[in-house]
Amino acid sequence: MSSERAAAAAPGASCPIPIDRLERVVLGHGSGGRLTAQLVEELLLPAFRNPALEALDDQAVLDLPGSRIAMTTDSYVVSPIFFPGGDIGQLAVHGTVNDLAMGGALPVALSLALILEEGFPLADLARVIDSARAAAARVGVPVVTGDTKVVGRGSGDGVFVNTTGIGLVPDGVRLGSSRVRAGDSILVSGTIGDHGMAILAHREGLALEGELVSDTAPLHELAQAVLAACPDTHAMRDPTRGGLAATLVEIAARQRLGIAIDEAALPVRDAVRGACELLGLDPLHVANEGKLVAFVPGEAEADVLRALRSHPLGREAQAIGRVRAEHPGVVVQRTWIGGERVVDLPFAEPMPRIC
Amino acid sequence: MSSERAAAAAPGASCPIPIDRLERVVLGHGSGGRLTAQLVEELLLPAFRNPALEALDDQAVLDLPGSRIAMTTDSYVVSPIFFPGGDIGQLAVHGTVNDLAMGGALPVALSLALILEEGFPLADLARVIDSARAAAARVGVPVVTGDTKVVGRGSGDGVFVNTTGIGLVPDGVRLGSSRVRAGDSILVSGTIGDHGMAILAHREGLALEGELVSDTAPLHELAQAVLAACPDTHAMRDPTRGGLAATLVEIAARQRLGIAIDEAALPVRDAVRGACELLGLDPLHVANEGKLVAFVPGEAEADVLRALRSHPLGREAQAIGRVRAEHPGVVVQRTWIGGERVVDLPFAEPMPRIC
Repeated sequence: MSSERAAAAAPGASCPIPIDRLERVVLGHGSGGRLTAQLVEELLLPAFRNPALEALDDQAVLDLPGSRIAMTTDSYVVSPIFFPGGDIGQLAVHGTVNDLAMGGALPVALSLALILEEGFPLADLARVIDSARAAAARVGVPVVTGDTKVVGRGSGDGVFVNTTGIGLVPDGVRLGSSRVRAGDSILVSGTIGDHGMAILAHREGLALEGELVSDTAPLHELAQAVLAACPDTHAMRDPTRGGLAATLVEIAARQRLGIAIDEAALPVRDAVRGACELLGLDPLHVANEGKLVAFVPGEAEADVLRALRSHPLGREAQAIGRVRAEHPGVVVQRTWIGGERVVDLPFAEPMPRIC
Repeated sequence: MSSERAAAAAPGASCPIPIDRLERVVLGHGSGGRLTAQLVEELLLPAFRNPALEALDDQAVLDLPGSRIAMTTDSYVVSPIFFPGGDIGQLAVHGTVNDLAMGGALPVALSLALILEEGFPLADLARVIDSARAAAARVGVPVVTGDTKVVGRGSGDGVFVNTTGIGLVPDGVRLGSSRVRAGDSILVSGTIGDHGMAILAHREGLALEGELVSDTAPLHELAQAVLAACPDTHAMRDPTRGGLAATLVEIAARQRLGIAIDEAALPVRDAVRGACELLGLDPLHVANEGKLVAFVPGEAEADVLRALRSHPLGREAQAIGRVRAEHPGVVVQRTWIGGERVVDLPFAEPMPRIC
């Protein structure tokens, strides 16, 4: 299920509290961490089980007569709705375009559904809509259907946006976490943690705020560049909620493969690193909204890196590690000082409403 | 835009207050009445203008290589989430299936996105999910992708559900309000006002409550029965928010046609009529969730009526009136006592969160 890849974080990362011991929804159920995984694995997947859903990639791929269609959905509840580098309107368009792009799909159409709270300023709504409009226009994807609901004061929070997207998957494109193999090179298209720290710093009023800017951006061109450089690319993901850690842990756990990454190779802005240290967070756990992770055959690493770096959104791309057969289900990070540590999912990410 | 057909209620039914005089969102913006229409016409349509969206039918139809795909989205914020005759889970599945069905599309796939409020009982969530599961299974449509977000206490209200659906439009099917013609017969598949009054009575604790049951039901089979009986059916709609009045007023206004309906022909349950009288409401303005309105060439009326009545969901179907060239933009109801009155959109439907 889109943005719930942590969902797939199977046995190794399961939740220590049985779901039937929890009586109520907690914020962590929306965090992309273990609680989200448990909710999806124990409640949602069993209810709706079918092959398209069970792939648990960022998008479902449907074989229709004459075409392969990708479909993905996300609701956006980010707080605040206006943040350094973006707002909920463009975030909703980019996020859904990105989930399509990670399946190699070319975006065809979006739906846009609003849940408004009584009293929300119409001027803010106009700003959000204009931002979504501009983002969709830049991508060249039409918003073809929509919906507006209004709830009373105190029953919502300004505006929530759902965008659902469909895209066409070109012939021959076959991306999915099930194709990841030992020996694959893992590349990230740029610095990690920018979006999450921009939101957190803005929310907490941190002094560093000015340097922390969301990376929200549409990744469809960058994804096509990866595929052009390596048509045999195995999988792509955009590491949103739960950060890069959630993406890696999920793939390692689900595919029973080991993953080793180098801390020294991870691109992290100084301001993000500083803010993370201040707040006791690991950039690996912090959400991104304009970065992709590609799993490509080892021999294609240099070509894909070159392709990424030649696009404005991929200039700071890095090869960060490898998939291996040893230590299946475990993600290990080689630290700056030469040690090793296991990368895990946060139990419940300390950052609610990051997207 | 799906469920925002009132949107299309052009000049004749426009809002007396300019949108730039209103500073904030009010509950009426979600009512399916004039305020919703204004929001869509003045803010949303201008932003996203494209042919698929501008048709303003319940679903967009996209021509893809080899197939015609219908797409529709709706968020469900109904309160209470459990009500006589149904709950938000099945309502969300039925509503989106119905918006596809009204375009003659066969449902192919649904997405399901949850916005949960911290503290929402997991047992209630399990009930909602099981109900959505059962509804999707009965229709035979898979839920192929999903999303879960959680907001803090007081920033949501238990659970909001977005369902977006895609469907295949068979060759030769060409339904849309732009095809409605003078001389068309207007048929409704059963009693009106059941859903809205069930919600309202439950919410207000009316004594009649026991007899008031939502009509939530999937209309895909009934829609196919109409098309089988009359392949040249011009348009179908499910009169949800804003009720039958909103559907008729919108088509009359947008297509510059007159509509005349007979109050005596309108099927309304006694309990609904009684509750409406008690609350000062007109059943024409009350939401339905399991009824369709068909616009068919006059000569096909008897065939379509027979087809509707032979399906369990259409046993109480009626031909309720005609489309005419006279009085373009105006819907007139011939009353029981032989008079005539103009049917209008409510300014802001007095029933927030009906779906």
